[in-house]
Parts: sequence; C-alpha cells; structure tokens
Amino acid sequence: METMYFEVGKIVYEGPDSKNLLSYKFYNPEEEVLGKKMKEWFKFAVAYWHTFNSRGQDPFGDPTFNRPWFHNDPVSTSFAKIDALFEFCEKTGIEYFTFHDRDLAPEGLSLKESNKILDKVVEKLKEYMKTSNIKLLWGTANLFSHPRYAQGAATSPNPDVFAYAAGQVKKMLDVTKELGGLGYVLWGGREGYDNLLLTDSVLEEKLMARFLQLVVEYKKQIKFEGVLMIEPKPKEPTKHQYDFDASTVLHFLRKYGLFDEFKLNIEANHATLAGHTFAHELRVARINGKLGSIDANRGDLLLGWDTDQFPTDVYETTLAMYEVIENGGLDCGLNFDAKVRRASTDPEDLIYAHVSSMDAFALGLRLAARLREEIKPLVEERYAEYYSREIGTKILNGRVSMQELSDYAENLKDITLRSLKQELIEMIMNNIMFTTR
Amino acid sequence: METMYFEVGKIVYEGPDSKNLLSYKFYNPEEEVLGKKMKEWFKFAVAYWHTFNSRGQDPFGDPTFNRPWFHNDPVSTSFAKIDALFEFCEKTGIEYFTFHDRDLAPEGLSLKESNKILDKVVEKLKEYMKTSNIKLLWGTANLFSHPRYAQGAATSPNPDVFAYAAGQVKKMLDVTKELGGLGYVLWGGREGYDNLLLTDSVLEEKLMARFLQLVVEYKKQIKFEGVLMIEPKPKEPTKHQYDFDASTVLHFLRKYGLFDEFKLNIEANHATLAGHTFAHELRVARINGKLGSIDANRGDLLLGWDTDQFPTDVYETTLAMYEVIENGGLDCGLNFDAKVRRASTDPEDLIYAHVSSMDAFALGLRLAARLREEIKPLVEERYAEYYSREIGTKILNGRVSMQELSDYAENLKDITLRSLKQELIEMIMNNIMFTTR
Amino acid sequence: METMYFEVGKIVYEGPDSKNLLSYKFYNPEEEVLGKKMKEWFKFAVAYWHTFNSRGQDPFGDPTFNRPWFHNDPVSTSFAKIDALFEFCEKTGIEYFTFHDRDLAPEGLSLKESNKILDKVVEKLKEYMKTSNIKLLWGTANLFSHPRYAQGAATSPNPDVFAYAAGQVKKMLDVTKELGGLGYVLWGGREGYDNLLLTDSVLEEKLMARFLQLVVEYKKQIKFEGVLMIEPKPKEPTKHQYDFDASTVLHFLRKYGLFDEFKLNIEANHATLAGHTFAHELRVARINGKLGSIDANRGDLLLGWDTDQFPTDVYETTLAMYEVIENGGLDCGLNFDAKVRRASTDPEDLIYAHVSSMDAFALGLRLAARLREEIKPLVEERYAEYYSREIGTKILNGRVSMQELSDYAENLKDITLRSLKQELIEMIMNNIMFTTR
Amino acid sequence: METMYFEVGKIVYEGPDSKNLLSYKFYNPEEEVLGKKMKEWFKFAVAYWHTFNSRGQDPFGDPTFNRPWFHNDPVSTSFAKIDALFEFCEKTGIEYFTFHDRDLAPEGLSLKESNKILDKVVEKLKEYMKTSNIKLLWGTANLFSHPRYAQGAATSPNPDVFAYAAGQVKKMLDVTKELGGLGYVLWGGREGYDNLLLTDSVLEEKLMARFLQLVVEYKKQIKFEGVLMIEPKPKEPTKHQYDFDASTVLHFLRKYGLFDEFKLNIEANHATLAGHTFAHELRVARINGKLGSIDANRGDLLLGWDTDQFPTDVYETTLAMYEVIENGGLDCGLNFDAKVRRASTDPEDLIYAHVSSMDAFALGLRLAARLREEIKPLVEERYAEYYSREIGTKILNGRVSMQELSDYAENLKDITLRSLKQELIEMIMNNIMFTTR
Repeated sequence: METMYFEVGKIVYEGPDSKNLLSYKFYNPEEEVLGKKMKEWFKFAVAYWHTFNSRGQDPFGDPTFNRPWFHNDPVSTSFAKIDALFEFCEKTGIEYFTFHDRDLAPEGLSLKESNKILDKVVEKLKEYMKTSNIKLLWGTANLFSHPRYAQGAATSPNPDVFAYAAGQVKKMLDVTKELGGLGYVLWGGREGYDNLLLTDSVLEEKLMARFLQLVVEYKKQIKFEGVLMIEPKPKEPTKHQYDFDASTVLHFLRKYGLFDEFKLNIEANHATLAGHTFAHELRVARINGKLGSIDANRGDLLLGWDTDQFPTDVYETTLAMYEVIENGGLDCGLNFDAKVRRASTDPEDLIYAHVSSMDAFALGLRLAARLREEIKPLVEERYAEYYSREIGTKILNGRVSMQELSDYAENLKDITLRSLKQELIEMIMNNIMFTTR
Repeated sequence: METMYFEVGKIVYEGPDSKNLLSYKFYNPEEEVLGKKMKEWFKFAVAYWHTFNSRGQDPFGDPTFNRPWFHNDPVSTSFAKIDALFEFCEKTGIEYFTFHDRDLAPEGLSLKESNKILDKVVEKLKEYMKTSNIKLLWGTANLFSHPRYAQGAATSPNPDVFAYAAGQVKKMLDVTKELGGLGYVLWGGREGYDNLLLTDSVLEEKLMARFLQLVVEYKKQIKFEGVLMIEPKPKEPTKHQYDFDASTVLHFLRKYGLFDEFKLNIEANHATLAGHTFAHELRVARINGKLGSIDANRGDLLLGWDTDQFPTDVYETTLAMYEVIENGGLDCGLNFDAKVRRASTDPEDLIYAHVSSMDAFALGLRLAARLREEIKPLVEERYAEYYSREIGTKILNGRVSMQELSDYAENLKDITLRSLKQELIEMIMNNIMFTTR
Repeated sequence: METMYFEVGKIVYEGPDSKNLLSYKFYNPEEEVLGKKMKEWFKFAVAYWHTFNSRGQDPFGDPTFNRPWFHNDPVSTSFAKIDALFEFCEKTGIEYFTFHDRDLAPEGLSLKESNKILDKVVEKLKEYMKTSNIKLLWGTANLFSHPRYAQGAATSPNPDVFAYAAGQVKKMLDVTKELGGLGYVLWGGREGYDNLLLTDSVLEEKLMARFLQLVVEYKKQIKFEGVLMIEPKPKEPTKHQYDFDASTVLHFLRKYGLFDEFKLNIEANHATLAGHTFAHELRVARINGKLGSIDANRGDLLLGWDTDQFPTDVYETTLAMYEVIENGGLDCGLNFDAKVRRASTDPEDLIYAHVSSMDAFALGLRLAARLREEIKPLVEERYAEYYSREIGTKILNGRVSMQELSDYAENLKDITLRSLKQELIEMIMNNIMFTTR
Repeated sequence: METMYFEVGKIVYEGPDSKNLLSYKFYNPEEEVLGKKMKEWFKFAVAYWHTFNSRGQDPFGDPTFNRPWFHNDPVSTSFAKIDALFEFCEKTGIEYFTFHDRDLAPEGLSLKESNKILDKVVEKLKEYMKTSNIKLLWGTANLFSHPRYAQGAATSPNPDVFAYAAGQVKKMLDVTKELGGLGYVLWGGREGYDNLLLTDSVLEEKLMARFLQLVVEYKKQIKFEGVLMIEPKPKEPTKHQYDFDASTVLHFLRKYGLFDEFKLNIEANHATLAGHTFAHELRVARINGKLGSIDANRGDLLLGWDTDQFPTDVYETTLAMYEVIENGGLDCGLNFDAKVRRASTDPEDLIYAHVSSMDAFALGLRLAARLREEIKPLVEERYAEYYSREIGTKILNGRVSMQELSDYAENLKDITLRSLKQELIEMIMNNIMFTTR
C-alpha cells in the first residue's frame, strides 16, 4: 500500500497478546460473535468532517493541524481529501465513510454552482469506490455553518432559507443514493431557538414537520432505499435545539405522522449533554424500534460542550454494545463522530484514535455478550412475579380493575422487596472485564 | 380572625406605595387584568407537604422547625394541621390547597386501616370547607416515601406494590372528588431506574401505561370531572425518572393512546433539572394543549438538586405568566410547591414566603401583559414573509415539492437575514420592568 | 458628531420617564451616588475583541457580521477599527476601552515584525486619544489564539513558547504604559491541561510563577504604575485552567510570594462556570483586598460554555454593585467582556447592548445603595452576640481555650437559633426593586 | 468465625482465576507492590456512618434497611453496632474503621451527658480492639446534623454553638487519641452560607480560623500524634461550603498561618461536585505535600448531589492510585465513604460493595504501577527542552530577564510543537488494562 499521508502500514488483528501498538487486539473483522461477523456488528465509518476537514481550530484558537492534503485551491483539496480517505480506510480496514455536502466540495456563489462542483468531486469519489470496498454509510447536508442559517434552516423566519435548505438536502439525497449510501441523517443544528420570546414555536414546529415530509416524499420519488434518520442533540450551537433527545424526537414524529419514516442516529456526547447516559438514549431508541445508527464519541461530563472525544472507555462501549446486541445490530452502522484533540497534530494520531476506539468497541461487544449471559437471567428473575403470580398476570393482561386492586391491596400486610443488589452487579461487571472467568 | 399559629393579621392589597411588609403590593385579587380577575388567573394554592408537614430536615440534618401544630399523637396532629391550614389561608387570602394522602393523615398497619384514618380526617376537613371559601385545587397520592416503593410504584417488580399503589390512588380519586378538587396529579417519583442494566424497560413502560389506563377508567367510572395531570421530573430520587420532561411525557401519552386524557403540571425546578427553562416547559405544554397547572417554585441553577425555593425572581414570573396568558389561564391553578429554607424557623416565615411569591407572580402578570403588547408585533413581523411572499405561503400550505424548492433555490444569490436584535429585546424588557414607560 | 459606522446620535441621560430607547434611564454619569460620581463608580470600558474584532463565528458557524470597518488589507482594518472605537465611545459616552495586542494589529511573520506593525497602529491611537477623553482602561496580550500556544504559553513544554509569550507581554506592558492604561490583565486561557497524566504539574506551576515574577520585575523596571491583575477562569478552552477561581489564584499568589503584586479581574461568566455566583467571586476578591476590575457579562446557567452575553439582569447587577460599594469602587473599572448574539447583525445592536447593560449596572448601583441601608443592620444584628456577650468576645479575641469552651458547653441546654428569615430578605429585595418604598 | 449479622465466611485472596464471588481477585494484602505491602498502600477503612448507622432513607423516602443490629434502646444499638463492626472487619479483612461521635453513641440532653454515654461505648470498643487487629483510622465529630448547627458550627452567628462545637471536637480528639487513631478529620458541612447577603464573610472566616487554631493548640496540649485533616466539599448541605476544594482550603490555611498543621482528606464525589476529577484533587493535594487520606467513593456526574456510590470504575481507581504512588502512600489510609443503594437491602450487600471496591482499588494499584513505567518517560521527554536547552534552563533557574526573552523571541520564526498524542495515551491505557502486555 502506497503511503501518501499516513506513515503507517496496514493495521490487522493480532490479538491481545500482541505488543504492536498498531494492531487490533480485539477487533477481528471476520470473527463471529453471537452469530454475526464483527464487521457486520459495527460497520465502522470514518467521518469526513472531523478527520479530513478539521484543522484543529477551537473557539479560542486558530487551526493547529497542518494537513498535507490541504492546497490553496479548494477543488484540488477536495480531490486530495479523497486520496486521504481511501488511504486511511485501506490502512485501518474501515469500510465506510460519512460526509456532509460541504465536507466534500467547497461552496460556490450559488446553489447551482455548488452543486456543479459537488458533482465533479462525487464523480471522482465514485470512480475510486468502484475499485475498492470502501462504501458510503450515510450522507447528510450542512445546514448550520453558513450565515444564511444563523436563525435556522427549516425553521428560519426567511422562506428563502427554507428553500435553500431543501435544495441542499435534495441534492444530497440524490448523491447519497448515487453512491449507494445505507442511510441519510438529518441533524438540525440550528433548528432551535436562542430567544424563546421571539420564537413562534407553533409555526417553527410546523415548518420543521413540513421539511421532513418533503424529505420523505422526495426519498420515495427517487426510490432511495436507505434509512432516514434524525440525530438528537439538546443544545449547542443554539440555546435549545428542537431535537433535544430521543424521546423528544419520537414525540415530534408521532405528532406529525412521521413515525414510520424515520429512525434515530444516537450520539454519545449528545446524550450526555441532554442529561442522559449514552446507554439510556440507545435504550429509548431501541425499545421504540428506532435505533438506526450510532455516532460514536465521548463527552467530558465535567465540561458543558460537545467535546467529541474518541470513545475508549470500555465500560461505556460495553453498555452501548449491550443495547446494540439487543437491537440485533445496526442498520446504518457506527460512525466515529469524534475528533483528535487540538494538540494531537500528527496525521498518524487520526490512525491511533480510530484503532483505539474500534478496539474499545470490539472489546465492548465481546464483554457485552458475556454480560448478557449473566445479567439477563437476573433481570428475568427480578420481574418473575408478573408472570408467575395471578395478581401479576391480571395486571399485565389488563384483566383487573382499580376496585379489585384496591380490595386486594387493602388487606396486604408486609410487602417485602428483594434486594436489588446493584453492588453485586457492579462486581460481576468488573469480574467479566478484568478476570479470567 | 383568631390567631392560633401565625402571629400576623389578615394580609390585604395595599398597592406599591405601601410601606407595610405584610401587605400585597401587586396582588389585588378582584382587579381585572386582560379581562380576568387576578385571583382567577392564579388560583393560588398552598401545599400541605411543604407548609404544614415539613419539619426542616435535609439529607445531612435533623428537623429544625418546631411547628406548634405537631403533637405526639399523629391523629391529633392531623386535626391541628387542618386548623393551621385554615388560619393560614384566611390570613393570606389563598383560596386553595393541595395535598397527598399521607400529608393529611398517618399511615396505618394496612391500607384498609390507613383509609379509615384518612376518612376521619377528611370528614373534619369537609366540615371546615363548608363554612369557608377554602377549596381543594388538586389531590395526589404519596407513592414514593414508604419503603415498599423503593423500586417503583406502578413500575415495581413486585405486583403487590402495583396493587397497593392502585389502592392508594383509587382512594385519593374518591377523596379528591368528594372534596371537589379541580384536578388530580400523578408524580411518579420512583417510576424510573437506578440501574439500567437491571431494568426491563419494555415491561416497566407497559406497567406504567396500564396504571394510567386504570386511573382513567376509574375516573370515568366515578364521574370525577377534574383534570388528570402528570408532573414531569427528570431525576431525584431516582437516577432517571420516566416522566423526564414535558416532551417525554407527551410521547408516552401518545404512544399508549392516553393523550386525550391527561394534561401536565409543570414545576419550575423540575424544568431546570431537566436542562430547560421554566418558560420552555410551559411553552411545550401550552402548544400541545396540555398546560393544566403550575407547581411554582425556583431551583438554584448552581445546585444539582430540587431546592424548591419560593419563586421571587420577577424575570422568571413574567416569562411564566407570558405563557399562562397565551394559554388563556390555568384550569388547575398555581400551587406553591416550595419550602422555606431550613434556617427560616418561624411559622411567620411561611407567610412572608407566600406573600412575597404571590406578589412576584402578580407583578409578573402585570408586566407580561405589557410585554405582550411590545413583543407580539415583533414576532409577527419576524415571520411575516411566510404569509406575505408566495414562496412562504407555498411552503406553509404544502403546495411545493422538493424539486421546485431546489429549482427556486438554485439561482438565489444573497439571502440576507434581518438582525434578531436580542439585545434590544432585553432592553425593552428592562424598560417595562423598571421605568415608567 | 459624524456618523461613519453607527446610525445613531449621541446617547444621553434622560431619566426613567423617557420613552427614547436610545437614552440612559439610570446612567447619569455626573450624578453622585454615595459620594462618588456614577462614572467614577464604573469606569465603563468597551472591549476591542468582542465589539470591533468579532465577526460572529461560532464553533458550528461562519462569520455573520458584515462589519463595515473590515477591509481586505489588515492594516487598513486596524486603522478603521480605531475610527469605529472613537465613534462608538463618543456616541455612548463610554470613556474607556480595553484590548489585546492582536485586536489592535495583525500578526507579522516574526514577533519583531508584529511589534513594528503594532507600533504603527498605537501611534495613530495615541494621536486620537490626545484630542479626546477616551482612555485605556487596561491592556492584555493574546497568548491563546496562535497554534504555538496550543499546549500553553508560560506553561508550554517548549521554552521558545515561554520566551515568545514573555516577548508579547513585555511589548504590551510598554504599550499599556505608553497609552496611560490603569492596569494590565493576564488571562491564562491555555495555562492548564487537557490530560493530567501527561502533565508535570510541579514544573508547570513553577513556570507560571516564574512568568509572573518576570512581569512584576519588568513592570517595576519600566515604572508602570498600573495595577497588575489576573483573571480567573476554570476551563475552556482547556479542560482545566490553573486560575480556576479567585481562591485558587490567591493560593497560587501566596504560595509563590506574589500576593502583594496582583489583584483580580473578576468575570461573571467565569464565576458561574466555576460553580459560583458572580457575587461570590466578587466577595472573595474583596475580602482579600484583591478586587481590581470587573469583566461584566452574563452566562447562561443551563449552558456549559462561556456565552459572554450582555449583562441585563438587574438582580445580578444589584448584588454585584453591593460588593463594589463595599469595596469602595474599582481601581480598574468595569469592562464589557460581552458580545452581541450571532444573529444580532446590525452595528447598532452593539450600541443597544452597551446602553442596556450600562443602565442595568447604573440601576444596580442605585438599588444596591438602598439595599445596603436595609440589609447591613440586619447583618450586624445577626452576629451581635459575638460582640455583646462575654463568650462571644472571648472567642473572637482568642482569649479562651478548648478546655474552657468544652466546660462552658457541657452544661448548655437549649441553644435556640433565631430564624435566618431568608424569605423576608427576598421580599425586601423585591420591594426595593419594584415598589416606591 | 461466628456469624451474627453477615451470612458469609471470611473473604480471602484467591486471584483472578477464582470463580468465587466472595473472594478477592486482586487484593492480596501481604503481596508487595513497588516495595510496599498492598495493605500498607491502602489501610482500607469501613465508615461507621454509612455502613452501620444508615437505614437507607433519602430526601423522598423513609428507611429501607432493616438492620438486625438496631434495637429500641439506643445504647444497646451502640453495643450491637460494635459487634457488627468487628464481624464485618474480620470477614472482609478490613483493618480500620472511621467514625463520628454520634455514629458511636446517641446524643444525651446535654453535652456532658452525651460525653458520658460516649465514654461507655468507647470503653467497650477499646476492649474489643485489644483482642483484635482492628484499628481506628481517624475520628471526626458530627457538627452538621443537629438543628443547633443549622447556621454553621464554627461559623454560627451564635457563640454558644461555637462553644458546643469546640466541646464536641475536644472530646473526639481525646477519644481518637485514646483509641490510637492515625488522624482526625474536620468536615465543615455547615461552614458555608445559604444567603451571601446575610453573611459577614470576614467574621465567619475569622471564626473558622480561630476554631482551627484551637484544634491545633489542643492537639499539641494532649500530645495527639495523629494527622489533622480537612475534607473539602463545595456545597451540600449549604449552597456554598467554605472548604470548596483543595486549593480553596490551602489558601485558607496559608492565609491564617495554619498551613503546616493540616493535611487534606480528599473525597472523590466532593471533587466532582466542585467540577474537578478525583485525580485532579489528589494531584493538587499531593504537589502541595498535603495528601493525607482518601474518602473513596464515586459520584454520578449526571446527578448533582453527593451519591456516595461504591467506587468500582477501574479507570478512576487506576488514576487515583497513580497519584497515591507518586505520593509514596497515604498517612491516613483510604476510607470507604460510600453507601449501598437504598434498594440494596441485604446486610450482605455491604460485604459485596466493600469487596468489589477493594478489588477495584487493588487492581488500580497494579495497573497504575505499570502505567507509570510507560507514562513517566513520556512526560519527561515532553518537557525535556527545559533541561536540555540553554533557553530552558535559564528560564527555569531565573537567570533571564523579560528584555532578554523578548530579544530572543523577536527573531524566532517557526515554533513547532510536538504532537501531544493524547489518543495514543488512551490506547496505551486500555492496552495496560485489557491486554496481556
């Protein structure tokens, strides 16, 4: 494999005994776990925006990354980024990528011109994809960076902005279909408010629903078979974002008759910004039949913004994979919506970050499989009285009235709860993670 | 008026020029604002639990309040608390109260016995109510203090607990109806989880829905005309409470076909614990037709628990009353779910606290009425292009396809947004609050 | 007054009855409050960085402000910004400004070149200042934006960075002195860590102390008479910033023998990010004799980053001014370290924002003066027993041993605390703010 | 070993291959790690308050634990708790305990009476200790539960309360000395404020310093050789607690000439409530020579109160033990200031919780030892230029002026920072934790 940008060789599975940092210790793509190949459980994807576009700026600082694929001419940069993408994927064994329209190609003076430039870059991407096994996981459109979106995209008070956003999404649905993407994600980064008093919430909600209906109609029109997904986030950049968390999005979808058309893309750091654990949001999505994809990363719970760190906490990956296993996998894979720290300036740091996180998720999968064996019987036992006792089945099956329940309860004396034994569970979890059991 | 417990006279409206601390400066119950009497806008209620039951304990400290209505015999205490309630209401002019079953009367050795004791106390309460204008705002049952509820009430893994909880709620629906309550509130303080791994979320959700269905059926059976309400809270005492916020509850209600049967009781401190402003939660409830009642209090955003302070920040009360005005008022009033600080040990502090908060809300109502005059035209102007321009009306009315929007957008050049002018709005708000304009 | 950039006339005091939005309702610069002119209490300053440099970008979005003083040539922009500064100050009546080196003039290819460019711009600034009453409040150097500072400035692991930072500060001490600045502020935005494991805390602390010692030495060498100040902030951009809060900085200064050389510049939003109220941080600085200056702004306690909003909450400004009055004023004034929201795109929004905030602080001063009259006697009464009773004076004067206290205590029976009456205080505060008393 | 309360046998080290839940997999007390026995690294202690006193109540719920050592007569309970303590310690192999005065014995009607009851219980405790290897780690006094402390103990506005608190501490210094305690801890749970306006901060600080001076004097008088320690906590029960974090306490100690007399007891959950990681607070204490003891537990960063969970996250224990190793151990050991969850109602849950946490810390010690080998060379390399280059040594040794640094910097061109490689470090950490390397 030729090296243009990353001074490493191809990274392969060497198992937990290997001393080679640049090897997988736990991610063995073709190995089966619970009847499915590891690579199928994950469908790992690299994100164009953080990995190839970002230059390390932050709200208080200028770019720190001197990426060799950046040129003065933005179109040359676009082509060079494609080279970087393919080298990166071939070396890491990552088979998927994700992108926004503006990650791929620069914006022109009009949407028409932007689309033309995009077509040119997509053309080259398609060629590369033909001779490789690198695939598109999902596409999305950037409806938040340009100043036209400062007051929202679908929920902008200016209908031209709504139209412009629709134009961008239409194009990206076309492109995503053309590139064979498995899904399409909508993240409404500016769909929210900074000042509630100045916001017509009824109208903005109606506009947001209208926008999604247009997306559904167009998807059907072009016969795009991928999964439409919404990505919840509670805030940042806005004070309040409408897609606050999984439950809020599901409420919106039910309210506007869109429930059957969308799944969710759950991001770890967005979960914690909403006051939830990552596992909680996965659970909510899962039990509503809506877990479509994961934006894998990690926040810092002592910091109040989206840090988008690479996810390497194996407790977290294990609990996440527990939900994924229960979900029977992920239609639209696991995308690393994560960025190396601003002071990690070598291109190879991007490799370390992905390899380390893929291994953390692969180990999480292995551990979650073992954890399920231990925990599921305990959970079943916990609720057994709802199935084994008459009062339980009557409640469950709706064959008892309040009056009957009251009569039954009036003479109950001591109700004794069995200990929940949370500390024992924590012991079992550590034993699974760290001992040879 | 006789003084048993509170060494103050009757508190009346004296207007903003009064130097008398124990007078209302802004709350003039019979005065009309926007076509409705102030007392009708608010239906202020005192909460039994914080005001008459609490003794000032906290997680690190023993009781500090030496309330004269506490006796060694719990039933005598129950009767004395009724005296305290009526003296308190007559002196402050508060016309409503709210309570749990266990606030009113002590628990017996069985539910049957508890209900008997409760009946005795309710009997006396009813007598007092006959000769006074003090009314019940809403009732509720305490399904969280007793150890039987340590793992949930409706969502307990033990069906006896479900039955017991149903028995308590049945009784309180009866009592609330008997006392003429305007509504009934369910707060699921233990309906949630401490450990997600050990939780069968599908079953627990199903049980919670089953419980609410029973409540609805029983309400109809006994022809209780009041409003059923759910009170969202995100956490505390549990790590996660299912009724996280307004949107989460609305999702649940829609999912289980219960949407038409319930409204919401929005608490300020619960809103902020969920990461929202109070006004945000009122807005969400309102635009979904679900704003039934307010639990008025205030949290401390630098502290992470439910401080339940009395609400005196006039910015907050103004923004809250803005939503209430837009809602056309509150079916089930405004209950002070607030407690005096642990070091405020005089019974009279309860009076100061309520008077001060009632005045803060009354001033908030007056200011919100003026704020609406200034803000509503600005909001209308902000979104005017959706009504005045063809592209706007086509979007709104659903008479445009994605292809048409794209064609329209492709040739748009400069979209210029009008300044949102948030700083000007903040200036206007202060002018309304502090100047003579 | 000529209009180049701001389409408003000169803003003057018209009092609370004025209907003119562009007038001061409370800020009457020459009026005396508690024996000092209002303008002396405040010494309001405009901040170059937010007001003239910022273009409205945020972590998810491109610039939105199309400021007319920006030109293609950065040096022309520098000169135009000076025009904007003077027009802005003359129209608002703000008499001071603050700046970083890089706000004023662009960076060259070396520090030498940067300093030359800076000299040219300072030359013009000085000329303007000669014929106006606009003054420099304090200067500071930007040691955080450039990628060389990605791992710290004084605490960088690279000594060349330490030297470069020292060079920048030296130059800015020279410039600040030349322009007659009242003080000099050090904000260590990158002095902290992102990864504790990789951090030699002992060495970094030593380097930070060494840097401050160099500043003190150089200040004395050039006979700069202004006040050196440190600005605490807990985090952002780093995970942890060494100058976490006032107490942390004071500890550092005492530890390294620098206590007498520095005061603090307290920022409201930094206080809340550290888990404190603004008033708390002012109090800590004040009682240690270290309150030198205020960076006035406001955070959003439901958001976890530095929002730097304009401060208009009159409760907050009143409590802040209470501390300022107790401090006898501020050596180095009050700087608006605040920015208009990204969607407030008109240059005039800068005017509204400053006028509104100046009025909020002016009203805060008036209210704090009245609040002190009511509160100070209560506070004195609260602690009176330490002065009136023998046991109190013995404790205070250190004339009692543990054994004596124990003997005294052993036979004490009922200690009864007087009610703290926090709710009454909140009532008094609202009465002062909203009634005619 | 006789079983009175805990239905388990003696728990011993069986290594990571054991399938026995009630065995130590990593804690092998006599095994040496880095030249010191594991039991010496830790000196694990059980806390009387959480383990033997607590009954599972929370702010919304009544007691859930039906501990068999509770009797109707409080003095009998006191004696039974001693039995429980010794059985617990013998079965777990924990050699130390910690306690407050009020954990051990109930309060009487006067301090004199309380002390007498305490003496009786201490007498029995002493006897037991003679024939066992169970030792006292440290003692402390409860200055926060009783209503007399509602407005502070040393900082109460009532000097009788100051005296009473001094009397309690005097007694507990006597008792701690008598029982051979290694240290004495002061946690100022009520030393803080709820309302800043009503607080005379100067006086309260002076009183707090006076109190500590009395403690120091008395300690010397009775020749108690143990370590005096202060335990920081930022808030809860008060809005603000004076001993906010390690830096704040160190500032206070330096300010009042008490720096040489006290060390710190760092609690994990208090660290996170202050916005810091546990490792951060350990680091601050360590580099100031003040790390005396650890209160081991864990908070939930998505909850805003002190959850005091048992610490089982091995990432956290590893990072903590890294600091402990650098500190050369802990004078005053590691106390489990942790409580089983309210629904973990079996006495045996107390055993699981301690065993699991001891193993998590023991594994943390083993991993930290290996982590140091890998990380320390990287840290040294990171800062090497301060030792290897002339400019570095001049800066470090204070042999360079600002002018020289400026001259040096003026001609520097490209400063290139080496990548910090945080992602690589995270990979190394996981490799150490989960692979065979």
